Amino acid sequence: MNAPAAPQKAPRNLDLPALLAALGETLPPDQISTNAGIRDRHGRDESYHATEMPDVVVFPHSTEEVAAIARVAQRFQAPLIPFGVGTSLEGHVAATHGGISVDMGRMNKVIEVNAADLDVMVEAGVTRKQLNAFIKDQGLFFPIDPGADATLGGMSATRASGTNAVRYGTMRENVLGLTVVLADGRIIRTGGRARKSAAGYDLTRLFVGSEGTLGIITEVRLRLYGIPEAMASATANFPDIGAAVNTVIQVIQSGIPVARIELIDEVQIDAINRYSKLDLPVRPTLFFEFHGSEAGVAEQSESVKAIGEEFGMSDFAWSLKPEERSRLWQARHDAFYAGLALRPGAKGCPTDVCVPISRLADCILETKEDLIATGLLAPLVGHVGDGNFHLNILLDPDNAAEFARVKDFTGRLAHRAIAMGGTCTGEHGIGSGKIAFLEAEHGAAVAAMRQLKAALDPDNRMNPGKIFRA
Amino acid sequence: MNAPAAPQKAPRNLDLPALLAALGETLPPDQISTNAGIRDRHGRDESYHATEMPDVVVFPHSTEEVAAIARVAQRFQAPLIPFGVGTSLEGHVAATHGGISVDMGRMNKVIEVNAADLDVMVEAGVTRKQLNAFIKDQGLFFPIDPGADATLGGMSATRASGTNAVRYGTMRENVLGLTVVLADGRIIRTGGRARKSAAGYDLTRLFVGSEGTLGIITEVRLRLYGIPEAMASATANFPDIGAAVNTVIQVIQSGIPVARIELIDEVQIDAINRYSKLDLPVRPTLFFEFHGSEAGVAEQSESVKAIGEEFGMSDFAWSLKPEERSRLWQARHDAFYAGLALRPGAKGCPTDVCVPISRLADCILETKEDLIATGLLAPLVGHVGDGNFHLNILLDPDNAAEFARVKDFTGRLAHRAIAMGGTCTGEHGIGSGKIAFLEAEHGAAVAAMRQLKAALDPDNRMNPGKIFRA
Repeated sequence: MNAPAAPQKAPRNLDLPALLAALGETLPPDQISTNAGIRDRHGRDESYHATEMPDVVVFPHSTEEVAAIARVAQRFQAPLIPFGVGTSLEGHVAATHGGISVDMGRMNKVIEVNAADLDVMVEAGVTRKQLNAFIKDQGLFFPIDPGADATLGGMSATRASGTNAVRYGTMRENVLGLTVVLADGRIIRTGGRARKSAAGYDLTRLFVGSEGTLGIITEVRLRLYGIPEAMASATANFPDIGAAVNTVIQVIQSGIPVARIELIDEVQIDAINRYSKLDLPVRPTLFFEFHGSEAGVAEQSESVKAIGEEFGMSDFAWSLKPEERSRLWQARHDAFYAGLALRPGAKGCPTDVCVPISRLADCILETKEDLIATGLLAPLVGHVGDGNFHLNILLDPDNAAEFARVKDFTGRLAHRAIAMGGTCTGEHGIGSGKIAFLEAEHGAAVAAMRQLKAALDPDNRMNPGKIFRA
Repeated sequence: MNAPAAPQKAPRNLDLPALLAALGETLPPDQISTNAGIRDRHGRDESYHATEMPDVVVFPHSTEEVAAIARVAQRFQAPLIPFGVGTSLEGHVAATHGGISVDMGRMNKVIEVNAADLDVMVEAGVTRKQLNAFIKDQGLFFPIDPGADATLGGMSATRASGTNAVRYGTMRENVLGLTVVLADGRIIRTGGRARKSAAGYDLTRLFVGSEGTLGIITEVRLRLYGIPEAMASATANFPDIGAAVNTVIQVIQSGIPVARIELIDEVQIDAINRYSKLDLPVRPTLFFEFHGSEAGVAEQSESVKAIGEEFGMSDFAWSLKPEERSRLWQARHDAFYAGLALRPGAKGCPTDVCVPISRLADCILETKEDLIATGLLAPLVGHVGDGNFHLNILLDPDNAAEFARVKDFTGRLAHRAIAMGGTCTGEHGIGSGKIAFLEAEHGAAVAAMRQLKAALDPDNRMNPGKIFRA
């Protein structure tokens, strides 16, 4: 759904022929491309942001090659934009200032699995599904699931989270260490294999979520988990959003270690009924997943049921069996396409915010009123255990006036979340799309962020135009 | 046990009378002290490091006062050393370059408790016990327990953890946001109340563990937890350290959410028997604590018992009852003083390292051989669920030759842990005591840390001489 490619910007006096010659001395020919189709593919993500093509795409095979590329880029003052599989949602990979797209896709080896220590080291181009397939036979899994089969380097760079975060945390909690190539080609290794350390600054957490603006992540050490003995799923309906959210608050406060709690609103349920020919009650619905022992998941489920019933919950359905669990969650899995089908021909503009759970019902209700007032249709799903919710705003990509209304609406949504003590993005990141809200959220702290950026990237060549205006 | 105060260093041309005059214009007289006893108290922590007195101690009442102090300090190029209650262990508060000690003790208000969102905002001088007393009636608790009743600002600054970290994480995972005064007096607020955010750099995690070298933490927003419905304790003995550690590895890998797993070695058990007139089997012993529902903690305990028995565990004792739980853990609580009593008149030199759990048995066994070869006595306790262990090396503080041997030993221990993929400190921090090991652990990344330090503190006035050589 990307808008047509913007004319290439050349704010820098990039001597492209000389840069290409220098890259040619650094890498074999099959690791460099100036093909327009390939450049176009590397200048866009899955969002509505305009495609902005890099001047050249390189495909390194090792950290040392990334470092060599960075040294060439420094010599020619060329921007460097890391690229995973392009599933980001806020324009993260667009080459707003031209330069070199560094495609990490060929760095896709699982380097070492330490089953006893529950950690793994992967190259940045390994995807989460690839990792999970690799470690499954050892009884291990990596829980962070942002939906897309993103690379683990990209997930680190954007601080990804998703449905499992309520129990397992986000990439912030699950990255143990990184190998990073800095703007000048230096290679640093952050963190380590110990589960905790008090030795020096937490560089790992600084690079997690830095969206390529401080360095290129080439290797990631992750925390793993044993596959739970039992998993159970449940669904239940609520009289209104407030009742659903109050149930969630009580569940979290009781310390019930729910693995997933997803909310779908009645608009989305209606869409699913139409799309999947179902007859679900058109009410706000919570989807639960429980991980633990068989007795443990049964107990968790009983506790959740007891809490929900205090808030008017009905139709509680629960199962341990894989096929039944899939059936219960089917509506959640169908949500995306069911939502799009509400308006044939429309594209989805995804956006997310996150607020303290106590404000979640207010934030959702105000937002739904705003949608109606603005004349927009946007099914809602939420990782509500974290206070995080997503809208997929349905719009006609060729209607500029509608697009402008969508932009205004997402701005109001971001400011609403911030005013409630929340954040303009729970998991998609700032990219180029939410720069305007960073200052509203972090105030004077943004200047400190810029000082850190200037310290590690004095020429502003690392994914320029992201997080901060270039 | 601190060594006598070193002669005050004056590497800067600090115009002390003018500085004091300017502070006098900034703060009321009862918030400024140049009393030698007070300065001495603020130049030492609980470690063996030499006392180094600041030139003056100030007692701010608000973030704004801290900012005003910072502006005065900048004008006179005076170092600023934040002070909590002085329970750090690596010389963190010693004024190695003179300057102003900023005692946060009067900023001791709990600002707001959000029970629904399980978060709290406190001033940096609130201690963890004070916080827990404050929130107990609301059914809430803050789990991080480093032993000492440290301030939450100090715990943030040193990335504290302790016995509960295996389940609840460390300060890294439990600080949601900070108010920080920077070197030039700017006030920034990091993080927020949302459970997760992908908006900009993770400044919170950068300041957590920065040991006062990047700014002064004045307020801390923390994650809280509901007090579990049930707590249970258990103890068990093992034929050797390897069997105990293998049990721990299996427990963690099985995903059993144990709240605490502590190891005490046979030397320490022997000490406890003598000290507390007990008759415990002189074998490596694990202490467990379980949090959850009544059925949940019983199930966790059963699972642990089944695993331990595969590794030759014996004398498994378990209880839900508070008085019985206290009795079971008595030996663990007595460990510190029982250890000291092994060598009457000796002082303890505490040190800690942390390694991947798979290397924990090797690291402990090699270290115990080294202790014997070096002729040192040092009881061992370990937060073994994290691979973290502590030695309290018993030494005669007036014996310089012995002190030198201790220093050599702790150096070997740090390098051993690093060589095993671990860290030179799991929770005490670098301070001035472990600077030599930071480079060994982090290599080229230390230069990147120094670049960040220079960006936020260009004059190197924020707790100089800590983490890095000044």
